[in-house]
Amino acid sequence: MKVIEFWFSIGSTYTYLSVTRLTELGQNNLVKFSWHPFSVRKIMQQMDNIPFPPSKKVKLDYMWRDIERRAEMHGLEAKVPAPYPLKEFDLANRIAIVGMEEGWCAKYTRATYRRWFISSQEAGLEPNISESLKEIGQETNRIIKLANSEEIKNKYSKQTDIAVSKGIFGSPSFIVDGEVFWGDDRLEHAISWSKKSKN
Amino acid sequence: MKVIEFWFSIGSTYTYLSVTRLTELGQNNLVKFSWHPFSVRKIMQQMDNIPFPPSKKVKLDYMWRDIERRAEMHGLEAKVPAPYPLKEFDLANRIAIVGMEEGWCAKYTRATYRRWFISSQEAGLEPNISESLKEIGQETNRIIKLANSEEIKNKYSKQTDIAVSKGIFGSPSFIVDGEVFWGDDRLEHAISWSKKSKN
Repeated sequence: MKVIEFWFSIGSTYTYLSVTRLTELGQNNLVKFSWHPFSVRKIMQQMDNIPFPPSKKVKLDYMWRDIERRAEMHGLEAKVPAPYPLKEFDLANRIAIVGMEEGWCAKYTRATYRRWFISSQEAGLEPNISESLKEIGQETNRIIKLANSEEIKNKYSKQTDIAVSKGIFGSPSFIVDGEVFWGDDRLEHAISWSKKSKN
Repeated sequence: MKVIEFWFSIGSTYTYLSVTRLTELGQNNLVKFSWHPFSVRKIMQQMDNIPFPPSKKVKLDYMWRDIERRAEMHGLEAKVPAPYPLKEFDLANRIAIVGMEEGWCAKYTRATYRRWFISSQEAGLEPNISESLKEIGQETNRIIKLANSEEIKNKYSKQTDIAVSKGIFGSPSFIVDGEVFWGDDRLEHAISWSKKSKN
């Protein structure tokens, strides 16, 4: 089965749509997604890019309305605006890195996004962390300790370096045969691309 | 017949896709598009937004590849990268303003974009201007004189103010029942939105 790489940062708003749509789209299209957390914030800082400064309030308002309409189009729940930006962006993602190492990255990411976008519980903070980990059968104290370890911090940093080396600059990004597709609105294109290639 | 407002700036790259797709999409969906040129550059400057500074080369490369793939997906020709950014951005758009006043805005915009994206002739410069105007039966000297008049400059500025007042910050944008849809990749969403509303 064809594998599409799904690169994401918890904290990215549009990523909610992808996280929520991926399982069904994968089943319907016979493709598999591999989940790769990284720090989009670090990449944006390297590019001197601030996502939504106050001078861009119009754009920020547009983003929430666009997400609301697209969620509706896809039949998904979304209570917007969700808390934003995330105060503990890196912790939320380092937990996903632990999950990547232990095999529950997708489950955790779906659980934490659902609480963030449906229950307005900010990802990376309590009670979102504990409740999400409990839901997927993980023990909070052990995971937080790991997420704050040097080993996981290094792994997170390395993941981000790999993302950069692949030409990624935003979340979500999909990679198919070396082609980067950026944005939840490119997900269908990435899937159709995966079908026309041979490998 | 439902009318969707199409707000655009010649100089925007993704706008090529919309300009080229609009006629057929309108016919197939029984919607009509009204064409509204404005200065997206002025709005972006007001927002302190520079589209693609050198630090964002990765993003610029991605944009061209994405346009190339999307053109292919829609069955359109596109020789990319096209000359960019436009040196005479404002002149190209003021000619469109003259066209808006005289009723040939859409024809000119399609003609100038086709030369820009298929023949690599930069919009806003010769020979693109003369050839595009000749193709649509307009006399270059007369149009250039008008395009450089105070009246048209004021009209251009006013168009941009109207765009801002409608919540527009990028090109292309589509407006349906007061809802802004930004980007060629939102065109289908704007059309489906127009069908579900009553007016």
